[in-house]
Amino acid sequence: MEIAKLGEFGLINHLTKDIKPENETTKYGIGDDCAVLNYGDKETLVTSDMLMEGVHFDRTYIDMQHLGYKAAMVNISDIFAMNGTPKQMIVNIALSKSFTVEDIEMFYAGLRMACEKWKVDIVGGDTTSSYTGMAISITCIGEGEKDNIVYRNGAKDTDLICVSGDLGAAYMGLQLLEREKSVYYQQVDEARKRNDRKALEELSHFQPEFAGKEYLLQRQLKPEARGDILDKLKAFNIRPTAMIDISDGLSSEIMHICKQSECGCRIYEKNLPIDYQTAVMAEEMNMNVTTCAMNGGEDYELLFTVPIGDYAKIEDMEDVRIIGHITKKELGMMLITRDNSEFELKAQGWNPLA
Amino acid sequence: MEIAKLGEFGLINHLTKDIKPENETTKYGIGDDCAVLNYGDKETLVTSDMLMEGVHFDRTYIDMQHLGYKAAMVNISDIFAMNGTPKQMIVNIALSKSFTVEDIEMFYAGLRMACEKWKVDIVGGDTTSSYTGMAISITCIGEGEKDNIVYRNGAKDTDLICVSGDLGAAYMGLQLLEREKSVYYQQVDEARKRNDRKALEELSHFQPEFAGKEYLLQRQLKPEARGDILDKLKAFNIRPTAMIDISDGLSSEIMHICKQSECGCRIYEKNLPIDYQTAVMAEEMNMNVTTCAMNGGEDYELLFTVPIGDYAKIEDMEDVRIIGHITKKELGMMLITRDNSEFELKAQGWNPLA
Repeated sequence: MEIAKLGEFGLINHLTKDIKPENETTKYGIGDDCAVLNYGDKETLVTSDMLMEGVHFDRTYIDMQHLGYKAAMVNISDIFAMNGTPKQMIVNIALSKSFTVEDIEMFYAGLRMACEKWKVDIVGGDTTSSYTGMAISITCIGEGEKDNIVYRNGAKDTDLICVSGDLGAAYMGLQLLEREKSVYYQQVDEARKRNDRKALEELSHFQPEFAGKEYLLQRQLKPEARGDILDKLKAFNIRPTAMIDISDGLSSEIMHICKQSECGCRIYEKNLPIDYQTAVMAEEMNMNVTTCAMNGGEDYELLFTVPIGDYAKIEDMEDVRIIGHITKKELGMMLITRDNSEFELKAQGWNPLA
Repeated sequence: MEIAKLGEFGLINHLTKDIKPENETTKYGIGDDCAVLNYGDKETLVTSDMLMEGVHFDRTYIDMQHLGYKAAMVNISDIFAMNGTPKQMIVNIALSKSFTVEDIEMFYAGLRMACEKWKVDIVGGDTTSSYTGMAISITCIGEGEKDNIVYRNGAKDTDLICVSGDLGAAYMGLQLLEREKSVYYQQVDEARKRNDRKALEELSHFQPEFAGKEYLLQRQLKPEARGDILDKLKAFNIRPTAMIDISDGLSSEIMHICKQSECGCRIYEKNLPIDYQTAVMAEEMNMNVTTCAMNGGEDYELLFTVPIGDYAKIEDMEDVRIIGHITKKELGMMLITRDNSEFELKAQGWNPLA
């Protein structure tokens, strides 16, 4: 269905009519100039992200439902990174005329799947048109206990540096998608040059080679915000001293923590958690797997520091790895390789403005 | 300066380094995964808008500073429309590579001018790139007293319908800008056809005809959110029963109030507040001035209903006009013309998806 047929209010109504607020803090959701939230003695957290077609996502790789899921998760992840609980979401999207109502429905289906997973209410947003491509801007609001919000600036000398899950897989997933896309276009080009109609016909059923690499795709297309790690930390009675989520790559994120906490760090290459598929793919692509883990980005894992006194507890925690420790500022931000060489960390994280 | 030179964090730092939070409710602003707000026993309001180049604004008409000012005011206006006080703002922008750092600085200068006017703290946001044109997404957060938030759904039969300021001028301002642009291009076209180099040289200093129409331009390029009206209502001890701000046009907005309040209305053409310049411009353009006032949009005036008992107080209020009254639902939503004909209202407001 053409979007213009429904009109703005028709479309919003169509997309949101069965969204029912579930949080006590959501007093009024969609349908007025503002949503109304009500936080008693909790602190309110707000985060926002903008995703532009062609810059942040490529619709030849990601379908609308995964895109919605990912867009929501990325913001939910930022609330978790403050040790908060996500509660409400505002969704602004702009679409060119080539999008159908069904496309946006799929996008919303993905959004809602992510929101339902973490009990987040969609309370409003703007749906409008764009001359070119799709733009997504999401704001997520959450709450935190006054004394339990974790900033980036609380890391102290001797604190342990920990990371959840594994690193570099989302980046390898993107490499995989790009490789298969270029294989496809190369074959199409060659068939065209040979004027080979049969080959061109067969290419319309082109199947990319993803076998054995499903985890990489899942990490790229369906990232999960790590609220479960916060629950574990709470259960172990551990309060991180600093925390951030890994969107631009481990290097970039640990540098944020060190700069804001005015300290240095030592990260040990041998301790970096890397999945088998990530290692295999890096090998295939002739890439250094440590570089992928350090600078890949889009992992949406939690990077946090805990007091050295929590060593025994954190060592036993499933799906969390101690990868280094905080040092005095003058010792710099260092990566210690397997052969005990020291390299200064550089943020080679993805630069959306480059 | 090229934006890529600064990089994302450099740019954000450059733009926000001297932004100091002034609101007590702003616990932590820019620099972490989230801003941290703290609302005690007040209610929290959140609103968000997305503005796309080519759809919502044309940079041949509006400079970056006015664009920033307007983008902020539009969101501030939505908080006022709930009888709330704007407190924080989150600003997401995406820009193509043709923009310079100076462009964004001007945009921020406009944003900050609007925010300073209403003591709003800029607490975060995303700055990223776009393949084509500029996208702006702003979220404004505010607070309201629990019992004083005004929704769209509280209008009752016999309530008076009031509007602040005047209507249709912002729309006429846009018509004026479009007319002068087409005059310019027409003259360039003709000079090119004649191969008249002298005329083309003179056209590079083309001066649009804005004399005597400054108010229309101001209304289009520098709209003002009407927080002052809320102060007046408070001073007169009037609590609106329903309220909305006029972004899409009076017709569209009163219909929102009527639908959500399950009532009808009668709007009197003779009571519509219209500025002299609006009337002159409509005459020049051969347009019906009432249509402009009813459907023009972008006025950002407040449309609200008050109990009939407040008649004497509201009648005396400067810059507020009683334009009609609420009726039972079955009487419909009607415009009463000067010759006492009745027409059913239609929302011909601007459709960003058409």
